[in-house]
Formats: sequence, C-alpha cells, structure tokens
Amino acid sequence: MPVYKAPLRDMKFLINEVFDYPGHYQTLACGENATPDIVEAILNECGRFSEEVLSPLYQSGDQEGCRLENSEVTTPKGFKDAYDQYVMGGWQGLSAPEEYGGQGLPASMGLFKQEMMGTANWSFSMYPGLSIGAMNTIVLHGTEDQKQTYLVPLTEGRWGGTMCLTEPQCGTDLGQVKTKADPQADGSYALTGTKIFISSGDHDLTENIVHIVLARLPDAPKGTKGISLFIVPKFLPGADGGVGERNAVNCGALEKKMGIKASATCVMNFDGATGYLIGPENEGLECMFTFMNTARIGTAIQGVGPAELSYQWALAYAKERRSMRALSGKKEPGQVADSLIHHADVRRMLLTQKAIAEGGRAMLYYACKLADHMVEGYNEGDSEKIEKYDDKLGFLTPILKGFLTELGNEAANLGVQVFGGHGYIREHGMEQIVRDTRIATLYEGTTGIQALDLLGRKVLLMTQGGAVREFTFTIANFARKHLTSKSLRSLAIELLKLSAQWNLLTVRIMLAARKDRDVVSAAAHDFLMYSGYVTMAYMWLRQAAVAQDNLKNGGDESTAFYQTKLATAEFYYERLLPRAQSHATSMLSPTRNLMQITPDDMAFTG
Amino acid sequence: MPVYKAPLRDMKFLINEVFDYPGHYQTLACGENATPDIVEAILNECGRFSEEVLSPLYQSGDQEGCRLENSEVTTPKGFKDAYDQYVMGGWQGLSAPEEYGGQGLPASMGLFKQEMMGTANWSFSMYPGLSIGAMNTIVLHGTEDQKQTYLVPLTEGRWGGTMCLTEPQCGTDLGQVKTKADPQADGSYALTGTKIFISSGDHDLTENIVHIVLARLPDAPKGTKGISLFIVPKFLPGADGGVGERNAVNCGALEKKMGIKASATCVMNFDGATGYLIGPENEGLECMFTFMNTARIGTAIQGVGPAELSYQWALAYAKERRSMRALSGKKEPGQVADSLIHHADVRRMLLTQKAIAEGGRAMLYYACKLADHMVEGYNEGDSEKIEKYDDKLGFLTPILKGFLTELGNEAANLGVQVFGGHGYIREHGMEQIVRDTRIATLYEGTTGIQALDLLGRKVLLMTQGGAVREFTFTIANFARKHLTSKSLRSLAIELLKLSAQWNLLTVRIMLAARKDRDVVSAAAHDFLMYSGYVTMAYMWLRQAAVAQDNLKNGGDESTAFYQTKLATAEFYYERLLPRAQSHATSMLSPTRNLMQITPDDMAFTG
Repeated sequence: MPVYKAPLRDMKFLINEVFDYPGHYQTLACGENATPDIVEAILNECGRFSEEVLSPLYQSGDQEGCRLENSEVTTPKGFKDAYDQYVMGGWQGLSAPEEYGGQGLPASMGLFKQEMMGTANWSFSMYPGLSIGAMNTIVLHGTEDQKQTYLVPLTEGRWGGTMCLTEPQCGTDLGQVKTKADPQADGSYALTGTKIFISSGDHDLTENIVHIVLARLPDAPKGTKGISLFIVPKFLPGADGGVGERNAVNCGALEKKMGIKASATCVMNFDGATGYLIGPENEGLECMFTFMNTARIGTAIQGVGPAELSYQWALAYAKERRSMRALSGKKEPGQVADSLIHHADVRRMLLTQKAIAEGGRAMLYYACKLADHMVEGYNEGDSEKIEKYDDKLGFLTPILKGFLTELGNEAANLGVQVFGGHGYIREHGMEQIVRDTRIATLYEGTTGIQALDLLGRKVLLMTQGGAVREFTFTIANFARKHLTSKSLRSLAIELLKLSAQWNLLTVRIMLAARKDRDVVSAAAHDFLMYSGYVTMAYMWLRQAAVAQDNLKNGGDESTAFYQTKLATAEFYYERLLPRAQSHATSMLSPTRNLMQITPDDMAFTG
Repeated sequence: MPVYKAPLRDMKFLINEVFDYPGHYQTLACGENATPDIVEAILNECGRFSEEVLSPLYQSGDQEGCRLENSEVTTPKGFKDAYDQYVMGGWQGLSAPEEYGGQGLPASMGLFKQEMMGTANWSFSMYPGLSIGAMNTIVLHGTEDQKQTYLVPLTEGRWGGTMCLTEPQCGTDLGQVKTKADPQADGSYALTGTKIFISSGDHDLTENIVHIVLARLPDAPKGTKGISLFIVPKFLPGADGGVGERNAVNCGALEKKMGIKASATCVMNFDGATGYLIGPENEGLECMFTFMNTARIGTAIQGVGPAELSYQWALAYAKERRSMRALSGKKEPGQVADSLIHHADVRRMLLTQKAIAEGGRAMLYYACKLADHMVEGYNEGDSEKIEKYDDKLGFLTPILKGFLTELGNEAANLGVQVFGGHGYIREHGMEQIVRDTRIATLYEGTTGIQALDLLGRKVLLMTQGGAVREFTFTIANFARKHLTSKSLRSLAIELLKLSAQWNLLTVRIMLAARKDRDVVSAAAHDFLMYSGYVTMAYMWLRQAAVAQDNLKNGGDESTAFYQTKLATAEFYYERLLPRAQSHATSMLSPTRNLMQITPDDMAFTG
C-alpha cells in the first residue's frame, strides 16, 4: 500500500529561502513564538503525524466510508483514534487565539499543517477543517460569552464545528435560503429547515458539534439582505463546559458520493432547534464571508495536495514498472525492458504533476503571508490593514481556488495515466485520488463562481482593472531584475510579456463588457485560467531565481535540488505555460458564439 | 432517474447528408441490403432498444456490480434478460458474414449500433463488444472448421468471446508475455499462465465463452516474434453445436475498479487448459492486431458516447435548475432566479460537450466509411484494397482513439461541473459517467501509446510525413471551396492555415528527430492532440457546409437544426480550436526540459 511522504524539503525551501518566513514572522505581533526552531519542529512533527497516522487510513477510510444509524454517524475504523491523537497534539488550536486556549501562531502555520494533513488524508482533514471555519466565525463575530462557551472547546478539538449554508434549492445563490429562525422568549431562536451537503454534519469524533447556520428571521427582507447567522449546537452547552440537552438538529441522511467517502456529507434537519444569533441581524452573509478569502486558500490546498500525492505514487511506479525501450536506446540493457521513467512521454506526465504541485505550493505560500497580515489586522481591529490585505488576498484567492483545483484534477488524472490500466484498479489508490479531488472544483464556490468573482468582482467592479495593474507591476519588476541572468533571461522575458498581455486583456474585456454584459461571464473562465498560468509562472521564476543564486554561491548537498528546481521551471515555461495563449484567444472571442443558440435549440432528439 | 435519448437526428444528418452513406453503401458488395429504409429501421430500433432496455440498467448495474462465487461470475440484475433480448433481436450478427449466420451488413452499421448501445450502457455493451473482437479474429484467421464450431454460436450471440492479452508483468509490452502452450498428442495445446484485465472473462450471459489467448510455444523466439494465438473455450465444443466438457480456464478474481463496474474484469487462470492454434505459429501478435484499427474505432466511441450522455443530462439540469440572474439582465423575471442555461459560463461548458459529442461523432462516421472498404478488402481477399484503406484508417485511428477519449473525459467532467455539488452525488448519474469514461484513455492502448503510434509509426516511420501530407491535402481542398462563402469564410481560412501548419510541424519534428530520438516521444502527445483538434475542425467545417447549403435552399422544419450546426461550428473554431496552438508550441520545445532531470532527482523528501 502506498504511503505519503511529507515534502518537507520543498516546503522549507519555500518557507525559508523563497518567501523568507523567518523575517516575515518577525514583523507579526503573533510571530514571536514562530521562531525558526519552533517552525521546524512543528513542520517535522506534523509531517510525521500525517505520514504515520493519517496516511495509513487513506484507503481504508474510502473503502469503509461513513455509516448512519439512528441519526448518528460513525466514521471509518481508526478515525476516532487518529482524531484523539490530533487533539492530544494540540493541533486544532495551532493558529487560534491564546486567550481561548490556542497556541496563537500565525495563520500560515495552520495552512502548512492543513497541506500535509489534507494531502495524507483529505477526508480526515475535513473534520477539523470545518471546525476551523466555525472557530473563525466565532472569533470575529461572537460575543465574549459565545467565545467562552463555544470557542474554547472548539479550540481544544473537544467539540467539532460545521458551516450550514446550502439548501436543496440553492447552493451558490444563497439569497434563496428558506430556513427560518423564530425568536423565543428567552432570547434564543427556534430554527426550522433543511440544509444539505453539510460536511461533518454528524460524526463520532467529538462530544458536541457546533453548527453555524444561515437562516431568516421573520419579516426579514427577501434575498441576500435578509439572512442572519446562528449558532446551533448538537447538544446545548451544559455546566462546567460539558454538554447538556440534545438539540433538535439531526442528520437525516448521508450523501452517497463519488469520493471523500470517509468525510460525512449530511442532510441536516432543523426541527425547531435552539439557536443563538451571532453577529448583527440580516448581516449573516457578510459575517459568513468575512473569512472567505482565508477559507478558500484552505480549499485551494486540495489542488496542490492531490498533485503531490499522485506525483509521489506515480513516480515510484514509473521507476519500478518496466515496459518497452526508450526511443533514444536501451537504458537498462540487463533488464527485460526499460523503466517507464525513461520514456519522454511518461516524464511529460510526471513533470506536469511536479510543476503543478510545486508551483501551486508556491502560490499558496505566497498568499499565506498576506493571510497572516490580514488576520493580524482583525486581531488588532486595524481596518486599514484589513482592507489592504483583504484586497490583495481577495484578488489571489479565486485564482488559487479556481485554477489550482482545476490543475489538481489534471494532475490526479495524470497519476492514473502513468499507471496505465492499473491506475483504474482500486488497490493502487490512484483512482481514489481522482475521485477525492473531483469535489475540489465544485464546493466552496465552483470554478465558474471563482472566475466570476475574479473577473467580475475583484478585477472589474471593485478596481476597474487596478488589481491586475498592481499585481503585474510587482511581477514585471521582479522579472526585470533577471533579464541579464543567462539562465533566467528567457523565462524573465516571457514573464514580462505576459504581465503586459494580462493588462491588455483586462482592458479589452473591460471595454467589451461596457457594451455587452455577457462578456464577463463568457470570458471569466479563460481569464481565470490565464491568470493562474501567469501567477504560477511568476512563482516558478521566483523559485528559479533562488535556486540560481544558491548554485552561484557554490555547490553543497543541495546542488541537485536547486538544479532540479531550475529544470522544472524550464519545463513549466516551455511545456505548460503556452496554454495561457489559448485561453487568451478564447477569452476575446465574441459572446455570440455562446449566446446565439436558444435553449430549445440546444438539442434535437428523434 | 435520467434516461438516454438516441441522438438520431444528428446521426442521420451525418449518415445521409454529410457523408452520403446511401451512396457509399451502393459501392459496397455487402451494401445492397443496406438500403435507406433498412438503415433507418435499424437505427430507430437500435435507438429504442438502447433507450428502453439498456439505459434503465445504467445506474443499477454500477451500484450492484458483478459478483464472483465458486469461480462463476454473475452480472447485475437485468443484464441477462437484456442480453437475451439482444440475442433475440439478432444484434450480434448485424455486420457478421451471412454464411455463418450474420446479416452481412456493412461494418459501419455495427459501429452505429455500438455508439447507441455503448452510450446507453457502456458496461453492458462490453460483453457483446468483446465477442465481436473474437469473431473478427476467427473470421480472418480461423479454419473453416473453427468458423463452424465457434463463429456460428458467437454470431448468434449464444456464446461470448474475450481477448486475453495482458499479464501481470505486461500490458503494452506484449513481448513479455509468458503464458505457455504445450503441444498435445491430439494436435491441441495445453495452456498455462495468468491473464489479467480480461473483460467479460466470465459471466452468466452465454452458455459458453471463447477466449482468444496470446501464448508462447515451446522454444518460440523471445519477444514479440514468439507469440502465437489460441482459441480456448470455457467449455469444449460438444455435439450438435452445444457445449461439452468444462475446460481448465477459470476466473480467479474480479478487479475492483473505479467504474464500468457492471463489466466483469477478470483475472483468468489457465491451468493446462485445452486450446487450439489459430493462425500461423509465432505470428499471434500480427493476427491479433489485424483488426486493431477497426477495434480502436470501437473504443473511440467511448469518447463520443459519454460526451453525448453527459451533455443530455447536463442540458436538462441547466434548463431546470435556477441560480442567480444572467449578467445581461433577468431572463425569467417571474421566477426566483434564472435557469443555469442563461449564464454564459454554463453555456461554455454545455457547448464544449456538444461540440465534442457532435464533432467526435463526425470523426467516427468519417472513419467508418474507410472501415467498410477495408473490411470489404478482407472479404474479397483484395490486398491492394486492404493496404490502401488500412493506411488511411491506420492514420486516423490513433487520433480518434487517443484524442476523442481524452475529450470524452473532459466532457464528462464538465457535465459534473454543470451540476455543481450535485454532480458529485451518485443519484444524479453524472459522476458515474466520469468514472466509467476514465478507463477509455487507459485500455486498448493508452493515450501515450496512441500518440506514439500516430507520430512515431504512422507519420514518421511508415510514411515520412506522407500521411499528414495526404490528409491535409484533402482538408485544404475542402477548405478552399468555402473561401468565398460569407458565413464559412473565416472557418475555411483558419482550417487552411492549420493544414499548412500541420505539415510544417511534422517536418520540423522529423528533422529534429534525426538528431535526437527522444523528440518523437516528447512531442507525441501534443502532436496527437493537435491532430485531433485539426481533424475535428475539418469535421465541423464539413457539417457547417452542409447546414449552410440547406439553409440557402430555403427553410423547412430543420432550419433551427442547421442554424444550430453553424453556431456550434463557430463556437468550436473560436473557443476550442485555439488550444491547437498551445500544443503546437509545446511540441516544438526542446527534449532537454523533459530529459535533463535524473530519476533520482525527480523528488527530494525529508
């Protein structure tokens, strides 16, 4: 059975060498505990936990899945024990505020943790992951009493959390939410309605589950401006931080899904369940989305993780399995055939996975620094800082979430392809990565929604192209520094051209959209993908530049590592980046080709 | 539960209007029975059977899967009954020779049939599909006695067939085959070995199963030149065409797969099983591959079918599900939100599926005419005709199989994407299409193998670029005819440019490959995809030209159909075809970016 190896060498390269996290942490108020020694120790320990505790449950969790009996969900064998170890290790409170029991480390460290745990076992990581969503909401919008009651046990990991948004009739379009919250005499609310697709809606890992629920007060305005946010615990809080009476919220069914089968996806029925308002009335959506940009980095990890995992296993197979001879001549003449790794086409697939995993990781870690600053802004109540970093992060998150999850799917499928027919067989684990990863472009806003958020909202509506101008200014400045470097020149020139093109495309779409509003929706997907390829190109030049510097300063035991970074950057620029141009062409094509066929004429049967 | 509707309107458009099959059938010796009335009746009846009998078993077959008990495989509920109806309808012998009980209709009709049945239920269609493989082998290489004994019950559908090639240590690289065939005193052979991934290896649909097996005679040369072909029946033939003694071939295990779960994928153990040589000693591979080009068209159908099915269901959902408002203004003001179909980005996904399904179908039907001629060559023993059409078809089949199955996967995934989170849930059937389709790029030669076959063998080795020159000559001539048409001019110009570019790319690769053999493997995938996009562009211009002609000749009830054809062609050229250029750029990039990293340096852990 395959196992996961935490890619600590690459993570530390990005953390210490490319993005200078040690320096970055010194600028953060909460960064004083994040000394290089502590960071190193936490990364190593998290890697070990992911490899030894979570990875072995990856396939068994998929095969066993979750069970629902008498409204109670049971997770697969080994999950409860692994979760207990997770709680004992204090992992849940890593980036949570110290005053509520957390370790108060920077948000970025929580994301490094999530990358390793999520790659080893995405289904498992969703249980604590959803709790983090609930915790963030309470940190920002809860009263002191709510924090003491809910945040403390959530931070310990003793309680779990969920986010209850989707209903049968609406997912993206939350203005259609129907769940009702009726005020009760004691100041609480009685919630009635059905929520679907609730990850971790019920399970046996924690003694209580804290649901954060979108619902409507009586006489609330229609649409998105009439939705409020409520805390609805599975068990009402009892004395001494324990649990009390069972609340009227129940798991009515478990969804049968393509993948992430060890993660319980629940239909949740609220039958007059007791809830407590959190945040202002009718501002539930804003409260829910406060942390959206940080949360979406969390989901973007599901682009990088599967690429890494699938790459590791495909690489091992490609070294071991022998088939045919390399076109350039026998590579292993003593063997019956050459290993797959000697075939250029197999290398094309492996390097695509590698370039996505490492390029995507760099995109994540680049954004995590911004997330640290933004969270600090929240902690300090510094609205200027919040706005500044929320803008920067708000531009990047749809690119990260949308683009990286699309590429994560591609990488996972390439992993299957390297295995040939064996990739289709369950025991090798490769097809499971494809099934698990397929959710990533669907939940937390589909790729289409990310694309619209990027182009329609962040680029056009909010900044009239300014977001692209600002980011490409940064990119172009970086590229210019490397125009005279022999080994980086061609990459730098390409990146410089793309910076200019990205602005030009933005302007052209902006002008076209003034006459034809469909342009935005028509161009959004290609714009998102184009933006992703260019952003990843920037990340590959940054990595290549550090590698080049290190090689110039004389070889050490890392020489091969740096040379491989340069070679992978070259691969990315020469074989993957050309795709940006097909997106550039498509995005400028007229909306007519999408809109002219009437719905009735889309198909002719009979 | 979703159902399949046979796309008869589109099929008949291609058969009657674009490719003039009525005229084509008149040129075939076996075509006299394929009158327009007969063809129409068969298509309609096959559509009805696929919709009413096979489609309802699509999801239940996946959920139930196959069972193995006491070495006997049981297919899912309903499969045996459906298969009996299939036999009663005489479907198995549609294109089989009349002298052995078939209907003697052209091969193309068998492929039209396979498209509908395979789209409605791919797993089901694999049982008779594998039998066709066995039948073709016996038709071409069997003795008269073997034909009477095996071909007749196979043609009736009373017996099933398999192709036993793959072994645990080899799939693509069949030179590594180890299964042994020891000559017996009675002229038969005793076969010993293990075959894996044997589709329909055992099942309860037929009273007997005829395995066509690759094995080695004692003292046979090593590698591919020492492999012979054998008939190994599950039950030895009995008196009066019935079955006799049970043979020593058994299903040892069923593979647990990602999809096509209703198709039994067996590990087959041959324990001194009685077999009979078919074809000359040591020429088993050539015999097995005689019909490869036709067989691969059969697999290419699994690119088109899933695109069609997924499109049908996604389209229905997009018309029904309401979310948000169209950017260009409310489309259904009386409703809580607009249907998905009014969003340009959703249309982009739907039209991509549609363009793949219809463009891919056109590619198939174009190739099927060549297959008809080639089969006629075999029937007449006309080696000149065989060679001529085998060359033409041999060039197209890797493009069809490789490119269309890749795009079929894309289309199936887009279908899930249109459904959003609901696409991930089993009950909607969309994720099953993805799982079922995933096998298509893996079996019958992976995409990588198709790419190498196309570029390395068909284009460079066998014709020194001549295959591309000949095909682009045809394409360019067609494009030139439409340069003066107002509505087709821009498409024709684009196609003309691509014809020239395809040749240029071929020459550049040919020259580069003289110095660096890795070029072929490095460029093969991009060359394959590029070839696919251009071939599909040719097919879209052909469809558009017919549609345009019909519109010029005055409107009838088909006006909307033809207008939609033109609009879809436009969509294809403007939004999908630009991808060809990114493949063109990638394929010319230096092999260095693939080959310079040593196997050891591909990953650094710890």
